[in-house]
Parts: sequence; C-alpha cells; structure tokens
Amino acid sequence: MIPFKIYLDERELPDKWLNIKGFMKDKPAPLIRPTDGKPCTLGDLTPVFCDALAAQELDGTSKYIEIPKPINDFYKLFRPSPLVRAYGLERALDTPAEIYYKFEGNNTSGSHKLNSAAAQAYYAKAQGLDAVTTETGAGQWGTALAMAGAYFGVGVNVFMVKVSYEQKPFRRNVMEVYGASVTPSPSEKTAAGRSILAAHPNTDGSLGCAISEAVEAATTDRSGKTRYVLGSVLDQVVLHQSVIGLETKTALDKYGIKPDVIIGCAGGGSNLGGLIAPFVAEKLEGKSDVRLVAVEPASCPSLTKGEYRYDYCDTAKITPLAKMYTLGCDFIPSASHAGGLRYHGMSPVLSKLYHDKYIEARSYTQTQVFAAAVEFAKIEGTLPAPESAHAIKGAIDIALDCKKSGEKKVIVFGLTGTGYFDMKAYGEFMNGSMKDSAYSAN
Amino acid sequence: MIPFKIYLDERELPDKWLNIKGFMKDKPAPLIRPTDGKPCTLGDLTPVFCDALAAQELDGTSKYIEIPKPINDFYKLFRPSPLVRAYGLERALDTPAEIYYKFEGNNTSGSHKLNSAAAQAYYAKAQGLDAVTTETGAGQWGTALAMAGAYFGVGVNVFMVKVSYEQKPFRRNVMEVYGASVTPSPSEKTAAGRSILAAHPNTDGSLGCAISEAVEAATTDRSGKTRYVLGSVLDQVVLHQSVIGLETKTALDKYGIKPDVIIGCAGGGSNLGGLIAPFVAEKLEGKSDVRLVAVEPASCPSLTKGEYRYDYCDTAKITPLAKMYTLGCDFIPSASHAGGLRYHGMSPVLSKLYHDKYIEARSYTQTQVFAAAVEFAKIEGTLPAPESAHAIKGAIDIALDCKKSGEKKVIVFGLTGTGYFDMKAYGEFMNGSMKDSAYSAN
Repeated sequence: MIPFKIYLDERELPDKWLNIKGFMKDKPAPLIRPTDGKPCTLGDLTPVFCDALAAQELDGTSKYIEIPKPINDFYKLFRPSPLVRAYGLERALDTPAEIYYKFEGNNTSGSHKLNSAAAQAYYAKAQGLDAVTTETGAGQWGTALAMAGAYFGVGVNVFMVKVSYEQKPFRRNVMEVYGASVTPSPSEKTAAGRSILAAHPNTDGSLGCAISEAVEAATTDRSGKTRYVLGSVLDQVVLHQSVIGLETKTALDKYGIKPDVIIGCAGGGSNLGGLIAPFVAEKLEGKSDVRLVAVEPASCPSLTKGEYRYDYCDTAKITPLAKMYTLGCDFIPSASHAGGLRYHGMSPVLSKLYHDKYIEARSYTQTQVFAAAVEFAKIEGTLPAPESAHAIKGAIDIALDCKKSGEKKVIVFGLTGTGYFDMKAYGEFMNGSMKDSAYSAN
Repeated sequence: MIPFKIYLDERELPDKWLNIKGFMKDKPAPLIRPTDGKPCTLGDLTPVFCDALAAQELDGTSKYIEIPKPINDFYKLFRPSPLVRAYGLERALDTPAEIYYKFEGNNTSGSHKLNSAAAQAYYAKAQGLDAVTTETGAGQWGTALAMAGAYFGVGVNVFMVKVSYEQKPFRRNVMEVYGASVTPSPSEKTAAGRSILAAHPNTDGSLGCAISEAVEAATTDRSGKTRYVLGSVLDQVVLHQSVIGLETKTALDKYGIKPDVIIGCAGGGSNLGGLIAPFVAEKLEGKSDVRLVAVEPASCPSLTKGEYRYDYCDTAKITPLAKMYTLGCDFIPSASHAGGLRYHGMSPVLSKLYHDKYIEARSYTQTQVFAAAVEFAKIEGTLPAPESAHAIKGAIDIALDCKKSGEKKVIVFGLTGTGYFDMKAYGEFMNGSMKDSAYSAN
C-alpha cells in the first residue's frame, strides 16, 4: 500500500537543479534591454543581480546545474517535503482517481519561496556581498529571504508595500526576528520613493513602486556590495524551484507511480515551473504525454486571457522586457481579489511552453477557490494558502471528471503553502462577504 | 552519519499509547470529589467526559492502551513528526553535546495539541455523541479540536476567553473554517456566564470562567449527547501525548542513540509527560538513569515554587481536586507574562514523578526564553512557540554545561510548536518593551 506520506531519504534528495530551457529545442525569446531592444548580456544584469544568478538567468543550454553543498545543507532543515496521498479527498469525492500533493508549507515562511531564497542568499554571500534588497507584498517572499539571509549571514533589506506593512505587522515582526530590515514603501530612502511620496503623500504603496525602490537601493549602494533579488517570474527562480518536481518524481518513481496529470497554481509561475520541471523535460524529449495544468485566478488570468508579447516585468517600467503572456504591466487586479497570484505576467519559460501547447491553463473565481480550500482543510487537515487552493480546485475538478468517465488516473498537484496569514480573506469567505469580480483589462 | 531529520516509516508508528501510571509502583493520589473528598468513580466522570476517556483517566494499571485504527489514520495526516538533529545549533554553541529535537508544529493547529484532540473527538463520535464543548485561551487547543471534530464528524463548541476572541479574530476564523462554533466567554449561553456578566459587564473573561461555561454547556445539554473535553493536565491527555515519546524512542533506537538528558516545557504537563513517557517507564523499571528536565516560566513556577497538595483544577472550583504541584487555583500570572504556560497546577502524574525525584525542574524569565527563541530561529530556521522556547533555553544551557565539562552528552528536547500566532510578543521582545516579572503568590 502507498503510505499516506512519502518522505525521501536525505540521500535521495536532488544534488542538481533542472534547467527546463536546456531541454527546449525552441528556446524562449531572450530578455531585452528597454534602451535599444537588444538581448540583455551578462554585463547588463550583473549590476543588478548576483553574478552567479545572472549567469543562471541567461543559461539556455545546461540541462542540470549543481546545487552547492551549503544550499543543500540548508534545504535539509525543511526538505524533503512530503508527497501526500490524499486518501481522504479521494474517498470524499468518490473518484477512481489517485490524488497526490506535494506540500511545501512546512517551514516558517509557509511556502515554497524558501527554495529560491536559500539559493539567492547563498550566492550573495559567496560573492562577498553585504546585503540584498527586495520587495514584498503579503510578506511570504520577504520572510523566506529573511530566513535565508539569517542562515547564510547576509543582510536583507525589504521594501514592504505600505498597506501590508501597516495591516500585517506580524509578518514584519517575523522578518525582523530573522534580522531583516523592513521599510514601508514608498519611503524617503530612494529617489523613486521620494518622487511618489511628493506626488501622492497618502498612497498605500504598490508592488511596482516597491520593486523600483528595491532595485534603486541595490544599484545605487556606493559600496557595490548590494544586489537585488526577486522571488518569482525569472528563469533563475524557476530553476531553483525544480527541487519540488525532482523530489516529486523520485518519490513517484520509488513506488512505480506514473502521473497522468500534474496541476499547479500559477502567479509568476515559479512554483508551477518547479513542480513540472522533470516531467516537462520528458515531454519535451517525446518520452511522456503527461497533462500539465496551470490554474490561475479568473480576475488575473494572464495565460487564459493575456497576450503573448514583450512587456515590462514591473509596473514602473525600469526592468528589462520579457516575452511572456501578459495582461499589460499597468494591470492591477480588482481590489476585491483576495486570493493572491496578482502578477500581470507569467514566467517567460512557462509562457513559451504554454504557447507551444506543452501546458494547458484554466481559471477559477475566488469563491470557487475558497470553497475548495475549506473542503480540503476539513478532509486533509491542512489549511491551504489561497494561492495553493487554485491547484486544489483544479485537482478536484479533474478527479470528478475521472468519476464521470470511470478513469483511474493519477493526479498530482502542488500545495505550495499554508494560509495562516490569510485569515482575513477566509473570514470574508465564511461570513459570505467575499465577492467575485470578472476580469476586465484596465 | 545521522541525518538532519529522522522520519519514521509509517509501519514504525506506535499502535499503542503508553500509560505512565501502569509503570509506577507508587501511584499518584486519585482525583477526589469536592463534595465528600472521596476518590472519583467512573460514574462521577462519565456525565462530564466521554466514557472511554473517563475510563482512561482512572486506569492506573494498564501499561499500554491500543490506539484505535481511525485515530492512527488521522495521525498519519500529520505524523510521524520529525526528530531533528540540531547540527547548526551544536556548531553555534561549539558544544561537544549532540542535540536533537522532536518537532510537533507541522500541522495547522501549530502544536502537539492535535494528538489528544484526535483521540477525544474520535471517542466522542464512537460513543454516538453529537458534540463536545471546551474552552480555549490563545486558541491552539481550540484549533486542534476543531480540526479533529471536522475530520471525525462531531460538533465542536468552543468557549474562547473574550479578550482573545476580540484580539485574535484570525484564530477564531481558523476554528470556524473547520466548522467549530466559537462563543466569546463569558456569554449569555450559560448560568455561569450570565452570573459573571451581571456582576462584571465589562470583563475580559478568563480561562477559569470559560472552563465553567464549557462544563456547564456539556452537562446541561438535554439530549445527553454532549461531553466536555480538555487539552492538558489530565492523565488521559498525557496518555495520548505518549505518541511523541514513543516515536522519539523508536527513532533514537533506530540509529543506536542513547539519550542522556530529555527536556520539555511544562505548563499543564501533557507535552512533557508525552515526550518522556517511554523513557520514564524505563527509569521506573530501574533500566535507565536518563535525566528528565521540566522547564517552566519564572512567573508561573508551579513545580519550582508550588506546593504539592490537593487543589482544584480550575479557578471556579467546580472540578474534582487533584493532588499536584500548585500555586493555588486562584493564581493568575502577571499580566506582563506573554510566554504561555500560564496554568496554576501541574499534571498529577508529573507532579508525583517530580515529588519522587524522577524528574527535575528549572525556570527561566521570559526575556531569557525569547532570546533563546530568536537565536534558535536564525540558526535552525523554525520560529518556535514561546512555550516551546522554554525547552530550547534549557537545552542550550545544558549543552553549554557540556562545553565546560567536555562531556559529549546526547540532549533531546521537545519543540512543541510554532510561534506564528505569537508575533505580538515577539515584536515586544524585539523592540525592547518586554518586561520580566518575578513570581509572587497572589
């Protein structure tokens, strides 16, 4: 019998990340410079990113990249993550399908974000840097980076969107326990922040503004010993997140289980890209016809309603342009949207795979997603993050398809994290005040 | 090499709980009735507690009690918990000691409380009851019971101390997601609540008052299909928590590791009792001389400053009396005490073991405890609950003793849970506003 949870032995953990681009014959279009539209070079990226990370960003050929031992030692504090057989959910749905989920929430950051934070903090330290800067909205990425910075001994300066800074003081407290410096954005610390404050003194802040401040703080630091880091979207982040998929594949192989469908939520795309990495590699090599499903919010549907074109990665238009599915870099999801996954674009690697039909996509409204989350919590015990619950909803629907067709498929989905800091949204769902909003370009 | 984390195979999980009393030649004094001072009988307890739980409460002879399969299936959703080798902490302390901790926080309730909630909800359902009532202060126990109630299909009515209900709406939201009904206490639902409200309309509530309401709500329910359940102190709870110690022992035995010192935080005592269960059993049989250390807060020091005598289990003096170390059932810890473990008494089983010198005890101030918590979080990754951090502080001090003496001892401590809902206290510690208060009888 398959156990409730498959935990790998530490000796079975991956010692290399998998670089999806290395398996693609038809590569994603390169990042281009906003100044002249030419492909970004290493020299364009290293003033902003750590050298090793910039090199990973541009590496389109390596199939695997070795995980440095200190990163793997840190991973061992919170990895392997369990691959859970959802016996209870299968029974409740009365489906012939087998359902598994890879659960990434068993660490203090509460999500998979720590997989990439570990790598980025390590490379910063290895390069002799003093500090890294970043932005955070709800705070999961900032928390993950603070934890990794504390472990590797590199400073972490977080620009936190002002409204979150004020409404989520506990998230900030967690980052500060790990020694990070947290600044509400917009701030007086940067020219970008000062200019926004001058124009809008009472602004709540935005992720776009926080990105601008974090990039400026890194690139204008006179010591030259600070770089900017980012928690999703970029190819380097998808690369680091491949540990999720590699562990999943090893665990499935160990029990001779062949997945038919793999499902992940998709915001910037790093979790989904990481989860599917080894499976899409086989598909690209013609060795597998596994279905790969991205699930996104109906009110921020970059894959299902966006255009595939070059766009800025940020709202402030200071970053390079990436070819991706995008709702436009000015897009802001409806204020009534509580369920995370608010990014206007999608990982360039995933965008290309979607465009080439290796991946399919679907979207759900947030009340559909929260209903699935509550059902899941009662049956399987874990209270999921609203982001993760998109994948739960997708898995439930596909398992119900199997019930209709009588097919005994193997469904695997990514449960990226826990919802302990999302209780305001859960409270709104439970008391019936949560609203759905249709997508409209803005 | 010992792995960073030892996870047992599901087939290695215990199928019996260990009943410490069964190994004691000199038994703890019995619970007595407040009316006539005679020992409580099964008939005294079953109107309040589920039949099977009342029987467990009075069972002083069985060494082991079988874990029903449905409970073990539920355990498999969040157990085994990992036994972690604290390599990072050992390195940071530069100690020759080996340090291990058993981590119980990887579930949505955030603590070990779910081990007993699972059992209590199961037995209620098996007896054909409709619902259970309980009280909760900070909310960990209430959350655990809500999760177990949802899983087994039994209603859960929680009386939550009013000040916590108002200040911690997110905790309440979690319980409601799992289908529990949460009432701020004092309430109009019970005679006890109405009488307190009449006398003190603006009261914040207290745990003592919430206990009175929960017991009254259970015993006056006309259907006869409701019972009261409790998250600590009682022998039945210590029994269920023995899964912690049994897993720990199996994991240590698997690698041939013999513990020299075992350390746990102690509030009501169920976590410590569960952790040490198989080890104290060996000690009682003269097969081991392992040191067993209880760590308690300096401002609520029931073992180190209390008296060993009969006392009420609750403030309202409606429960039976237990012979235990107690600060007096009227004792209320200083308002500046943020670190949990606020109970006036101590498990009768642990009290007897302490009185007979099988266990030792020590206490720390809360700033000492939070300093240890922050150090631990940065090194080992996990942000601990303040309660759990008492054990961390004890382990650090004993590891530093080993550094002085050069002894390569094996130290095991219990990390009972995570501190994600305790960030207010962490924030006070980080900004320097946390105060220590000496213990004074009140």
